[in-house]
Amino acid sequence: MDFIGLDDILLNALREDIGTGDLTTISCIPAENRSEGVFIAKESGVLCGLEVAARVFALVDKDISLSLLRKDGDKVSKGEVFAKISGPSRGILTGERVALNLMQRLSGTATAAAKAADAVKGTKARVVDTRKTTPSLRVLEKYAVRTGGCYNHRFNLADGVLIKDNHIKAAGSIEKAVKAARNAVPHLMKIEVETENLSQVQQALDAGADIIMLDNMTNEQMAKAVTLVNGRAITEASGNMGEKDLRKVAETGVDFISIGALTHSVKALEISLKF
Amino acid sequence: MDFIGLDDILLNALREDIGTGDLTTISCIPAENRSEGVFIAKESGVLCGLEVAARVFALVDKDISLSLLRKDGDKVSKGEVFAKISGPSRGILTGERVALNLMQRLSGTATAAAKAADAVKGTKARVVDTRKTTPSLRVLEKYAVRTGGCYNHRFNLADGVLIKDNHIKAAGSIEKAVKAARNAVPHLMKIEVETENLSQVQQALDAGADIIMLDNMTNEQMAKAVTLVNGRAITEASGNMGEKDLRKVAETGVDFISIGALTHSVKALEISLKF
Amino acid sequence: MDFIGLDDILLNALREDIGTGDLTTISCIPAENRSEGVFIAKESGVLCGLEVAARVFALVDKDISLSLLRKDGDKVSKGEVFAKISGPSRGILTGERVALNLMQRLSGTATAAAKAADAVKGTKARVVDTRKTTPSLRVLEKYAVRTGGCYNHRFNLADGVLIKDNHIKAAGSIEKAVKAARNAVPHLMKIEVETENLSQVQQALDAGADIIMLDNMTNEQMAKAVTLVNGRAITEASGNMGEKDLRKVAETGVDFISIGALTHSVKALEISLKF
Amino acid sequence: MDFIGLDDILLNALREDIGTGDLTTISCIPAENRSEGVFIAKESGVLCGLEVAARVFALVDKDISLSLLRKDGDKVSKGEVFAKISGPSRGILTGERVALNLMQRLSGTATAAAKAADAVKGTKARVVDTRKTTPSLRVLEKYAVRTGGCYNHRFNLADGVLIKDNHIKAAGSIEKAVKAARNAVPHLMKIEVETENLSQVQQALDAGADIIMLDNMTNEQMAKAVTLVNGRAITEASGNMGEKDLRKVAETGVDFISIGALTHSVKALEISLKF
Amino acid sequence: MDFIGLDDILLNALREDIGTGDLTTISCIPAENRSEGVFIAKESGVLCGLEVAARVFALVDKDISLSLLRKDGDKVSKGEVFAKISGPSRGILTGERVALNLMQRLSGTATAAAKAADAVKGTKARVVDTRKTTPSLRVLEKYAVRTGGCYNHRFNLADGVLIKDNHIKAAGSIEKAVKAARNAVPHLMKIEVETENLSQVQQALDAGADIIMLDNMTNEQMAKAVTLVNGRAITEASGNMGEKDLRKVAETGVDFISIGALTHSVKALEISLKF
Amino acid sequence: MDFIGLDDILLNALREDIGTGDLTTISCIPAENRSEGVFIAKESGVLCGLEVAARVFALVDKDISLSLLRKDGDKVSKGEVFAKISGPSRGILTGERVALNLMQRLSGTATAAAKAADAVKGTKARVVDTRKTTPSLRVLEKYAVRTGGCYNHRFNLADGVLIKDNHIKAAGSIEKAVKAARNAVPHLMKIEVETENLSQVQQALDAGADIIMLDNMTNEQMAKAVTLVNGRAITEASGNMGEKDLRKVAETGVDFISIGALTHSVKALEISLKF
Repeated sequence: MDFIGLDDILLNALREDIGTGDLTTISCIPAENRSEGVFIAKESGVLCGLEVAARVFALVDKDISLSLLRKDGDKVSKGEVFAKISGPSRGILTGERVALNLMQRLSGTATAAAKAADAVKGTKARVVDTRKTTPSLRVLEKYAVRTGGCYNHRFNLADGVLIKDNHIKAAGSIEKAVKAARNAVPHLMKIEVETENLSQVQQALDAGADIIMLDNMTNEQMAKAVTLVNGRAITEASGNMGEKDLRKVAETGVDFISIGALTHSVKALEISLKF
Repeated sequence: MDFIGLDDILLNALREDIGTGDLTTISCIPAENRSEGVFIAKESGVLCGLEVAARVFALVDKDISLSLLRKDGDKVSKGEVFAKISGPSRGILTGERVALNLMQRLSGTATAAAKAADAVKGTKARVVDTRKTTPSLRVLEKYAVRTGGCYNHRFNLADGVLIKDNHIKAAGSIEKAVKAARNAVPHLMKIEVETENLSQVQQALDAGADIIMLDNMTNEQMAKAVTLVNGRAITEASGNMGEKDLRKVAETGVDFISIGALTHSVKALEISLKF
Repeated sequence: MDFIGLDDILLNALREDIGTGDLTTISCIPAENRSEGVFIAKESGVLCGLEVAARVFALVDKDISLSLLRKDGDKVSKGEVFAKISGPSRGILTGERVALNLMQRLSGTATAAAKAADAVKGTKARVVDTRKTTPSLRVLEKYAVRTGGCYNHRFNLADGVLIKDNHIKAAGSIEKAVKAARNAVPHLMKIEVETENLSQVQQALDAGADIIMLDNMTNEQMAKAVTLVNGRAITEASGNMGEKDLRKVAETGVDFISIGALTHSVKALEISLKF
Repeated sequence: MDFIGLDDILLNALREDIGTGDLTTISCIPAENRSEGVFIAKESGVLCGLEVAARVFALVDKDISLSLLRKDGDKVSKGEVFAKISGPSRGILTGERVALNLMQRLSGTATAAAKAADAVKGTKARVVDTRKTTPSLRVLEKYAVRTGGCYNHRFNLADGVLIKDNHIKAAGSIEKAVKAARNAVPHLMKIEVETENLSQVQQALDAGADIIMLDNMTNEQMAKAVTLVNGRAITEASGNMGEKDLRKVAETGVDFISIGALTHSVKALEISLKF
Repeated sequence: MDFIGLDDILLNALREDIGTGDLTTISCIPAENRSEGVFIAKESGVLCGLEVAARVFALVDKDISLSLLRKDGDKVSKGEVFAKISGPSRGILTGERVALNLMQRLSGTATAAAKAADAVKGTKARVVDTRKTTPSLRVLEKYAVRTGGCYNHRFNLADGVLIKDNHIKAAGSIEKAVKAARNAVPHLMKIEVETENLSQVQQALDAGADIIMLDNMTNEQMAKAVTLVNGRAITEASGNMGEKDLRKVAETGVDFISIGALTHSVKALEISLKF
Repeated sequence: MDFIGLDDILLNALREDIGTGDLTTISCIPAENRSEGVFIAKESGVLCGLEVAARVFALVDKDISLSLLRKDGDKVSKGEVFAKISGPSRGILTGERVALNLMQRLSGTATAAAKAADAVKGTKARVVDTRKTTPSLRVLEKYAVRTGGCYNHRFNLADGVLIKDNHIKAAGSIEKAVKAARNAVPHLMKIEVETENLSQVQQALDAGADIIMLDNMTNEQMAKAVTLVNGRAITEASGNMGEKDLRKVAETGVDFISIGALTHSVKALEISLKF
């Protein structure tokens, strides 16, 4: 695991939580004290962020040692001890909250992603994430999506072209927008167009879109769209997918299903650290 | 509204989302295009982050103007238009995702906080948040908690003393921990001790704790603890409060109820921008 | 013109050049002095960086006003005055070197790009740049390439997939590399493979590459490769293109020609500022 | 070699080139793969930036080992292998472009500097650089100038006083400018004045300038100026020196010759990395 | 000792002092030279900043080794050698000034704090510092105050509530201000009110202030105030305490005495480094 | 007045003092409140930092207006009102401490500098500062020295060459050190050598030093040294000058007198803000 900028994210989080110093720990616990503790899952799910947590503690005090009994992507049961920690008591207590906050959130996303991946297993559809991530944590949350068994959509506005409804309105038409994009963006990029009905699907096909997003369509509309496209473009289902029966969506024949809720409405997986 | 470091948070979020440039917008839409749009709540709840969103757009292009029909803390109904935007099309489209990501998340927290505040209305209990916030967004999320009608616990490890179970274990006893803290921390700080049973409540009282956290106790235990404390310290209920009947907890007579789920497991309030 | 991070680049450059203060200017010239000056091209070429220069001066002193007689992309003749400046003498003199360093370098690239674009005019080939740019100035240099009439290849390692000789060696084969990439990267990305001979071109085609780079091939080999590919993939000529007869390369029928020298070996366009 | 701020420059360059991750490498090459490769000069010249490149790779992955067969300042022939690299394949491929971009550029400057130093060998003249460097790379480019055998002029506007034509105009006269500078700047600084003809040389002498720049003069004028100065000040030839016969300039008797082209119009020395 | 952000402070200081390079050292002393030296107190006092100095040298060159014969808080006599240094000559000389500047200043504060602590020994009063610290060095100066045997007041405006004269004026009254603060700030915070006379002391008591500052009162007034308060609140003497007879102030019965001069008017303890 | 990096210094200071928010002000004072106040000198001295203070308040809230009745460098008497402030109460109170901390410290240095300048008035000697400044505030403290009527020595290790005792020891001899420096540093730099006795003064002269520092010599020794030097180099008296009779030192005939105490042991000028 190797995240660009991971340390910056973690140091920001630590600075936010520690402020000018962990008063409780410094005042109550002698510097030379050492402790041992275990991380326990308080509910079952898919773990994610174990190495991130290890890095948090290393940034606080490099003498803290985290021994992982499970690794990112593993399933964990309620009550299971999945990691042990030992080292200077102060450092462990000072880093605890940031480490837990990250692990709980990432495990929550990985758990949701694993459920989504299971739901479409056996179909050709892949579940992908969106840009509806937590500001400043995207690199981690997209990692959690992959850890849970789903895939990543584009990372940001610079590494993919997705022409949405507002772009189409501002550009004048799907045809104009696709033509303009094709002329200007690097030749390594495919062009995706968001459509809301079959007429727009046809326009996107005519304009030469590489990928056609089927936004907020019913499963019936999506099935028709897939038939219309007939392999001439990649199809992607989108729109409040968190609330739908994913398998039914997958069975419409779409290539991809993008789900914002994997990252925008995460239920943290509860984890605790006990000395 | 006046957040220390707000611009840093927003610029980080914009850099993360825009990367080296918004290819779709730049390629499809002429620089001189102007658009108008409306923000629509796709479900009902309590709004939060409107001025934050306005600042996001201002950072992208100072010619964008956001006209607020509602303000932070207002209730909004499904389908309601609560803000209008106008200005350069490119800037609006480039800033849209970051603005929505923040507004949706903060409105989610404010909505949850409003429900919690309603639940305890009429009792003397106040609902407070925790440090289980999103790394790097704490200042915003604590604002959302207040916006929804709840209160803030300490901001970080430097502005409050909270002696928890692991501290007690590492320090030797509640008495030792409280004494050490009292001797070392600035005289403007109260000292809070986490307790798990009535015996610990008594120890905390004896040690002179200013605030006693009642962690993971049943409502009956909490009621007894409140009786035992009898005004000699402030009491705070804690522990998976998101899943409990808050009113019943409040009726035990505790002064404060802290709820991590207000910030660690937020369901985003769905909002969309339509040209 | 709207560069992400432009101000950071310019402020870094100003801090580097000004250090702890412009001793000469501060000591010799009273704060209230005002001056007027003109920017003169000392040789003919294509201008680029005029608005960048304007921003440099604005960062030094917002009372400096730069009046542009020409705009980015315009041809300029030797001896021609293309901009006028007026304002506080100190600020103009303090910002001069950074403004000139940037304008000269960017105009150098734009001039070279214009020559390359002219060379292939009338063919279907487009000239694109590479990642052989000046560290920290890529966003500006890629802008200069567009200003001169050429196109941009991918911006960085995250927004495009290009499997080069060393990747192929490390991955085992073209087939393995393309398959692995296709499985893992976002579905918005095309996959480009670098080839050195016709056998590799065939392997890339078989592996389903979207784009095939013809690296260091003779014009004859490239013509054969284009015939072999026959529209099933995009073709891109590469390899010391700065020293070749670009038109002949374009006439082989390739879709793109990438030239590193546009940015790695720039001859600055000489410009001077005269009070 | 010990550059202040080197890591900041290199990390900026790496972030610019890697963006949110090296998609090709991560997707095609397993994390545990290791590779060996050689750096080959594709043309002859003077090497510079070898330790800089080593630091680039160390920043990407500390397990990469670069073994240098040559050191900065050594001449290298076309086709010569001057360094070997081994370690994790991913890291080597991810750092390759930034390392090459820097080595090629710095070796280009060192090669040009070596030619200039050779041209004046045996005369008393020293060749120095200017502030016409690449924004943000000055510390490295000035190192490359020294590596090639030339010398450095002032680093920035704070560590030397150079009164140029525009300063003289704004200050009123050479005499006024020198007097004002002498009164205000630290007593450790010499004062240099730019002159364009013999009359100005005389004025600079009369004003007590420590150093007199002879700007854009013919060799004959410079010889006369040297005679006029007669050791009462240091002399420095300047003005498009890249296009002149440096030896003839040196033979006019000047103490220093400053050449902007050493850094503003560098032809990169071509280098490649082969697994 | 473990300061949040210490390295940032030290790196800023080093960048400020080293600029683009230590010309004297680099030019005069070969890179391979090694030196040994001793740190000598040129006057007697209390040492502070030894580990800070060690960190400064480690940041300059990790091969420098500082051997401490005394530790922070120890008294030192004039002429005493309290630390030895050895390692690369260049690094020692380059880091010397920053290390000395910090040690001298912190030892100056620790020495003043030790005098103040001595003056109140045997009384119940504790001497505390203020926010009148050196911008950007607060964390270090507050450490020096503790090292000398005094205590810290609040660290910043976020970790303590102190209602001063101007706040009272702006809020309308002591009562209004205390009530507003109590309602809004986290329940872990005590509330302190600045008073200038006995009437205000009474108002503060009535308003329920936890701590009452007695500002610029005579010792007689303070004694009366202590009697009036009678244990119902903590008392703190304040106002040009550096010029007063601290013992007499302590004997008035106040709980705390805050002294700005500990940090705002420090006489550096003279220290020198001799090879 | 125009400091490079001033805003960074001030923002750091504000962040340090405000932390996550000014709790007292926000809780006690309504956002719409406006106040007026005056700045009063509590003792007489020379003012410095007025515009710095104005910038502090502008950074906190741009609606705060500071009206200066005096300017930097003006003498002020005890009790004198020298500035008026008006604007949002919150912003004034939040910025107050940082503004006062800076003004008090800078005015302290300016006051000390004015006394030193007065002491040498009528002699040819100039008083200069040293690098014994407060880490991160050097640019401001050197400005205060000038404001008080003294002069600046070099700013940092990069803009002047000063060969001190430890350099001489490490280099082998004064002759070797001067020769090495002359060969390597830019030709715009003078070379200063620290000497401790007349023999070293002679060595420095022989080595061609431009400036000779007379360190820790008696006035008699300095007078002899001046006679020995006889105009062949600039002379600078140094060494605990804060405790000496400056006029007597000046009368020895030295050109410069450097005083560390101007910045390392400042007594803050007391100033208060009253609503």
